[in-house]
Amino acid sequence: MKQIGIVGGTGYTGSELLRLLIPHPHVQVRCITSRQLAGQPINQHFPNMTGFISGTFVDPDTAPLAECDLVFFATPHGIAMKEAPPLLEQGIKVIDLSADFRIKDLPLWEHWYRQNHSSPEWVAKAIYGLPETHRPDIRTAQLVANPGCHAIAIQLGLLPLMGHSDWIDTQHLIANTASGVSGAGRQAEIPLLLSEASDNFKAYGVMGHRHLPEIQQELQKISSTPVGLTFVPHLLPMIRGILATIYIPIRSVQNWTDCYQSFYQSEPFVQILDNKQLPETRMVKLSNRCQIAIQRPQDGDTLVVLSAIDNLVKGAAGQAVQNMNLMLGFPETTGLMNISPLP
Amino acid sequence: MKQIGIVGGTGYTGSELLRLLIPHPHVQVRCITSRQLAGQPINQHFPNMTGFISGTFVDPDTAPLAECDLVFFATPHGIAMKEAPPLLEQGIKVIDLSADFRIKDLPLWEHWYRQNHSSPEWVAKAIYGLPETHRPDIRTAQLVANPGCHAIAIQLGLLPLMGHSDWIDTQHLIANTASGVSGAGRQAEIPLLLSEASDNFKAYGVMGHRHLPEIQQELQKISSTPVGLTFVPHLLPMIRGILATIYIPIRSVQNWTDCYQSFYQSEPFVQILDNKQLPETRMVKLSNRCQIAIQRPQDGDTLVVLSAIDNLVKGAAGQAVQNMNLMLGFPETTGLMNISPLP
Amino acid sequence: MKQIGIVGGTGYTGSELLRLLIPHPHVQVRCITSRQLAGQPINQHFPNMTGFISGTFVDPDTAPLAECDLVFFATPHGIAMKEAPPLLEQGIKVIDLSADFRIKDLPLWEHWYRQNHSSPEWVAKAIYGLPETHRPDIRTAQLVANPGCHAIAIQLGLLPLMGHSDWIDTQHLIANTASGVSGAGRQAEIPLLLSEASDNFKAYGVMGHRHLPEIQQELQKISSTPVGLTFVPHLLPMIRGILATIYIPIRSVQNWTDCYQSFYQSEPFVQILDNKQLPETRMVKLSNRCQIAIQRPQDGDTLVVLSAIDNLVKGAAGQAVQNMNLMLGFPETTGLMNISPLP
Amino acid sequence: MKQIGIVGGTGYTGSELLRLLIPHPHVQVRCITSRQLAGQPINQHFPNMTGFISGTFVDPDTAPLAECDLVFFATPHGIAMKEAPPLLEQGIKVIDLSADFRIKDLPLWEHWYRQNHSSPEWVAKAIYGLPETHRPDIRTAQLVANPGCHAIAIQLGLLPLMGHSDWIDTQHLIANTASGVSGAGRQAEIPLLLSEASDNFKAYGVMGHRHLPEIQQELQKISSTPVGLTFVPHLLPMIRGILATIYIPIRSVQNWTDCYQSFYQSEPFVQILDNKQLPETRMVKLSNRCQIAIQRPQDGDTLVVLSAIDNLVKGAAGQAVQNMNLMLGFPETTGLMNISPLP
Repeated sequence: MKQIGIVGGTGYTGSELLRLLIPHPHVQVRCITSRQLAGQPINQHFPNMTGFISGTFVDPDTAPLAECDLVFFATPHGIAMKEAPPLLEQGIKVIDLSADFRIKDLPLWEHWYRQNHSSPEWVAKAIYGLPETHRPDIRTAQLVANPGCHAIAIQLGLLPLMGHSDWIDTQHLIANTASGVSGAGRQAEIPLLLSEASDNFKAYGVMGHRHLPEIQQELQKISSTPVGLTFVPHLLPMIRGILATIYIPIRSVQNWTDCYQSFYQSEPFVQILDNKQLPETRMVKLSNRCQIAIQRPQDGDTLVVLSAIDNLVKGAAGQAVQNMNLMLGFPETTGLMNISPLP
Repeated sequence: MKQIGIVGGTGYTGSELLRLLIPHPHVQVRCITSRQLAGQPINQHFPNMTGFISGTFVDPDTAPLAECDLVFFATPHGIAMKEAPPLLEQGIKVIDLSADFRIKDLPLWEHWYRQNHSSPEWVAKAIYGLPETHRPDIRTAQLVANPGCHAIAIQLGLLPLMGHSDWIDTQHLIANTASGVSGAGRQAEIPLLLSEASDNFKAYGVMGHRHLPEIQQELQKISSTPVGLTFVPHLLPMIRGILATIYIPIRSVQNWTDCYQSFYQSEPFVQILDNKQLPETRMVKLSNRCQIAIQRPQDGDTLVVLSAIDNLVKGAAGQAVQNMNLMLGFPETTGLMNISPLP
Repeated sequence: MKQIGIVGGTGYTGSELLRLLIPHPHVQVRCITSRQLAGQPINQHFPNMTGFISGTFVDPDTAPLAECDLVFFATPHGIAMKEAPPLLEQGIKVIDLSADFRIKDLPLWEHWYRQNHSSPEWVAKAIYGLPETHRPDIRTAQLVANPGCHAIAIQLGLLPLMGHSDWIDTQHLIANTASGVSGAGRQAEIPLLLSEASDNFKAYGVMGHRHLPEIQQELQKISSTPVGLTFVPHLLPMIRGILATIYIPIRSVQNWTDCYQSFYQSEPFVQILDNKQLPETRMVKLSNRCQIAIQRPQDGDTLVVLSAIDNLVKGAAGQAVQNMNLMLGFPETTGLMNISPLP
Repeated sequence: MKQIGIVGGTGYTGSELLRLLIPHPHVQVRCITSRQLAGQPINQHFPNMTGFISGTFVDPDTAPLAECDLVFFATPHGIAMKEAPPLLEQGIKVIDLSADFRIKDLPLWEHWYRQNHSSPEWVAKAIYGLPETHRPDIRTAQLVANPGCHAIAIQLGLLPLMGHSDWIDTQHLIANTASGVSGAGRQAEIPLLLSEASDNFKAYGVMGHRHLPEIQQELQKISSTPVGLTFVPHLLPMIRGILATIYIPIRSVQNWTDCYQSFYQSEPFVQILDNKQLPETRMVKLSNRCQIAIQRPQDGDTLVVLSAIDNLVKGAAGQAVQNMNLMLGFPETTGLMNISPLP
């Protein structure tokens, strides 16, 4: 049994990591840190886990992280870049669920995240944790930067096309996404109250969302032509789920569904729907799956790709566990094959 | 007091018409028809209206519609084209909230609505009921075709640009809309159940939604270049509200917010937000308002216009009452100046 | 036009007061105070009110409250008892929506609200603002203590029985209530987040809710036998509405619905349903109504009374406006006769 | 691997049975019947199960049910009493999730379910499937009548007290329950639409709910004094979950929490909370657990017991799988130890 540490285990991604790791057959959660709740029983904070886990939250300064094989950082941006390097230097593997190591261009990172980066050398070594594009590197990585949730939904929707500049105009891509409020984390903020968000729909961050630079960085790696993306996220009146509706100017006509099915045929967590089906967020809820459909309305020159994930699973904790499986040499799908409940 | 009839008053648009017409100072609801509930007290079907209205639903065949000054049809598509002409021939004004008279191109209508049209002559005479484009004609109209809800949100978001082919590429417009489930009406269908729709988000009708042809017809009237529109509607896990997120390729740079404010300066129900605000469906809920914001992310060549309405008010019954006010010579905003509740 | 002040106008009861007072034909909102938002445009905080109200929030220390005819306190508990007395001493009428003046027994108040009371003399003079029991006193009151929302739903459900100790056992009453989360106010607290409260149902305050002492005080005034009440509130995954389900041991058999209809026959805002109907919170949403049904399951010795209100209207701001109408000599229903929307 | 059949697999309990049985290590789902969808791929109806199950729905008349070890009936009331006996006579074990075999008093059953019973002999042989009271009999049963969802939540909340007539007054019990709409099944009915049920709370069946007679039958078995119960169910604006709030007149004072903990100490799925915690439906969502808390407000003579389950799991399909484990000799918790997700 590999020993696992979780830094910052009291938020929604921490909670979701626990839900997935506790029944995982090959790992044991050794410690969960929380500066604020140190010493308090985990079950008191998470009554749903009573009987499944015991022990208390531990202070990050005294936690036995150095005795772990792999440590997850489920912390706000700016923490992992300070606290992960000492562990990395001791040879411990790290998966960071924040944005600290996602963007190679440091000034770009500092512009979007409004702070100086304290660990440029580990940014250089970090692997972007999307197995569908970086699987071999993830297997041998010491540090994996788990992608943003919108970034995952959008990239999985675009990947099969990005190497084909003859098929599409890569400069005028549009990604319209909508996500549940859990994506904003467990923060006591007025706009996230049920009374504010539950009977409402709105766009946010129209002038620039932080997932934009990582999407552009990753898509540009594949495309031979410049990538231009307009990305508008929206806030849904529900807890979990992201649907990305992607609009792509096309330059040729392909059997698009076949292209996608062929591209993803070996991927365990990407499912291409046939022409008669459309993804729904509930069909992937609590699962690590991404469901994708491709449509070409009115046989026109705009392709519509729909891509659905659970923002806390394939969009965060499930994706991180998939990366962990790769890094620790377990079968990639271990602990991740649960069925979405209906209803 | 003008006498008003409502044909098909038991669904959501019928209910919303009643909510707006009962306190209207210049009209009296003379009769509400329902074939199914004929003879039953209105209050039994609508307990929220007890004390505000009395009487029973009446059978459409015996209803005193001929004694009304104006009759609303809140019926499924295909009814008004059969039942409205006899009233029209007696000189009674009619506002049809269905799609029967919206589309001038009859074969196009018959293609999208899958039935033969029984009243081509009245299609020719009907005025499309969007006051922001057809106000003078609505004032003198005998028959008004109330627009579709998505169609209103999208048109109001695009109107100020459609006459400027030098500003925008009218052939590659994208309208991504999301609406509450009340837009589907009071129909006993599995996908509309709370257990199916409340914790979910999905696109629908990607290959073609019935509001597409009326939007294209109306936008083309204004544009000197061909209009091409990709329109993808989505279903929100809430009751009321539509947000249209519209993506427009631009050919020049304008002070877009100023353009919109100038275009709509005399419009009582269209509100242009400043650069720091974004529309939210709750801010127009239960009101006849449309809130619009214009953004240009990353100073790029794609303009993003956001347009929010309540699908049952400005998107249906409120729009119809606004048209009624024009047709009967009342001040246009009469009975329509209520404040959206918060929360 | 009477001049009205609102102290603490940025929360949900403040917002609801504005929604009701702006279109009120006999009053003008003179000033709205907010220590935190002083100087900021009201419309920026409440975009739904753009066009309906202008001006800025004012600091309570400099607000022209002394020039008002009546001032509402929509503040947290403990504020009005300090800030209202100076206004009262200048002869200004005050309606306090907090609990500061509801309970005559000061030690009891101090026990439940965990602070010392700074204005005992005004507690003695205050009138409990439930028109259904204190209408004549409210008409002439200078200070009205607006009741708690659960307290209103429960009292209206029990009033017709409390004077009849031969009919019921007043010592073993049970009130099970469920309310929307807006009752907790606009507070940035984790348990009120959509992600925590929207897919959940729970009881809270089982060992004692603050509305209990005011309910007991008021019911005891009417009952000749001791009043014993077990009161368990629950939190609903929705914004507005309270349903009280009240269980009453009976000692005789009456035509209960007739008793209630007779008791409330002159009340404009209490509606007794017939035997075939049950109250639903949506049927009173956004209205000042209370809907009540009385049932006797299995013809047994337990009566079930169901009482529904909108916690922000009849449970708070609407009730306060009803009191204002009485205090300022307007017809009691002025500005309060709107229809609940459906859906 | 034991072979399992599901009759009526297209509704919510059928779907939930599949979610639990597919990953169960000791059983294989041999066939799922549906008269309406016979021949259609299961995955087309349940896209969430693609990759987890293949095959098509089969017609009940031709399904290989006789080759199964155990058959679940997830059918409307009145089906199993006709279709189960032929299987039972061939020695196949049956768990019926409908009410057909729950009530021993046939005229009582016929009164509440408004039809004649076609299989009185199997009613006599059936075991009521609540392991907490009938575990030994369930182990050897051929036919198990799975209890109703409200009935489970209420019984688990009352069981520890029912044998103690000196502690409580068993004749004046009150059970106030609230459940998610999935309890009503996958039926296309207007009151279950999102537009009708999502922003609403109401009681229903106040004059008599069908789960009442089975609760009374089972509680009476344990109590030496007559059992009287007033039971009022309510409909919550959410999908899953039941909370029962039970009011019990007490005749003595005990350490109630200790009593409950002692009573349920060996039960794997009943969890007694300490005095500081209250059950929440989300804490048992998607799990087979029941969480119970006991409170005595104001140290009075009314005990309040709160009992939370997921109506589709411990209230239906999970309970059925627990019964199956007992009947087939597997460890009782097999396949049922998943963690409730948060959020």
